[in-house]
Amino acid sequence: MNRPLDVLIQALARLPGLGRRSAERAALALVLREPLARELSAALKSASERLCCCSLCGGLTERTENPCKLCSDPLRDVRLLCVVESPGDIRAIERSGAFRGRYHCLMGRISPARRSGPADVRLRELVERVDREEISEAILALSTDMEGDASAAMIAEMLRDRGVRVTRLAHGLPADSGVGYSDPVTLRRALSGRQSA
Amino acid sequence: MNRPLDVLIQALARLPGLGRRSAERAALALVLREPLARELSAALKSASERLCCCSLCGGLTERTENPCKLCSDPLRDVRLLCVVESPGDIRAIERSGAFRGRYHCLMGRISPARRSGPADVRLRELVERVDREEISEAILALSTDMEGDASAAMIAEMLRDRGVRVTRLAHGLPADSGVGYSDPVTLRRALSGRQSA
Repeated sequence: MNRPLDVLIQALARLPGLGRRSAERAALALVLREPLARELSAALKSASERLCCCSLCGGLTERTENPCKLCSDPLRDVRLLCVVESPGDIRAIERSGAFRGRYHCLMGRISPARRSGPADVRLRELVERVDREEISEAILALSTDMEGDASAAMIAEMLRDRGVRVTRLAHGLPADSGVGYSDPVTLRRALSGRQSA
Repeated sequence: MNRPLDVLIQALARLPGLGRRSAERAALALVLREPLARELSAALKSASERLCCCSLCGGLTERTENPCKLCSDPLRDVRLLCVVESPGDIRAIERSGAFRGRYHCLMGRISPARRSGPADVRLRELVERVDREEISEAILALSTDMEGDASAAMIAEMLRDRGVRVTRLAHGLPADSGVGYSDPVTLRRALSGRQSA
């Protein structure tokens, strides 16, 4: 019915988290409220021009700051390396304030279903870092699904051969949640990982 | 932590339907997958340049096509005028395929809470159209909340003085829904508007 609008809806619908309906609402708002579109255009341009992936950890950083702030912070513990799947995971862990080591982002996951193998993620770079840096513990902060578990097992094996302690994030009930809302797998893991109260 | 990214997240979070979390996911996807950002930029630019509001109905149209396709379609019934709040409403009704008249978009709603009065919507234009065109029925397709009801009552009064039949969309149960899921107001309206089976 309206070509430029439909193209905009399509572009928005490709973003994760936006269904067709929300993409349409967002597109209409952008077309009808000009400052909104101007702001988004400028932000997109600036982000594209100024951001890149840190050559060391793979997280997002400004081009003028590579390696990134986290990698070059002398106060962070270089012996602790947290392995994550994506730059968004680094942001989430930083928000928790519970980790003061450094990161290694795989930039993807090993997923046979999506034909993404070990060579498609930054595994070689991980091994090289472990060989080169003084890392004593690698904390695998991967997804808690079958692919995440399989990747963790594989990475653990590779790194243990190199004398590094390999750990995984605890599995269990998330915060602010009830037992009644939890799925069977979560409950099974929470039970088997129970700790004295 | 990362200025251009945060600015992009903020711009996305201003869009309707995107919470802070989905804005962050979308922003990361845009930064990490360059074609996605390029596509969205181009679509935004094209939509901003090529679209405008139809000078007659207020719906979205290409600048080269004003009045819009719907207003200038000789096959549509000029005696039926459907009054909506926003261009998105026109799209929704067109998708239903149930209306073959023309539209008038108020471009907003009368909302005392948001300090939007009768002068802030395209009411004067509506009255002028009713005076000028051969409209026999105005169908008010407004929101089914208190503000929508109040606006409908007000518009109905204005138009009835001009010898136009004024109707509202039926209130009742939405399709594919159950009585058990319906709120009390919907049920009350569905009951009072019941029809013989």
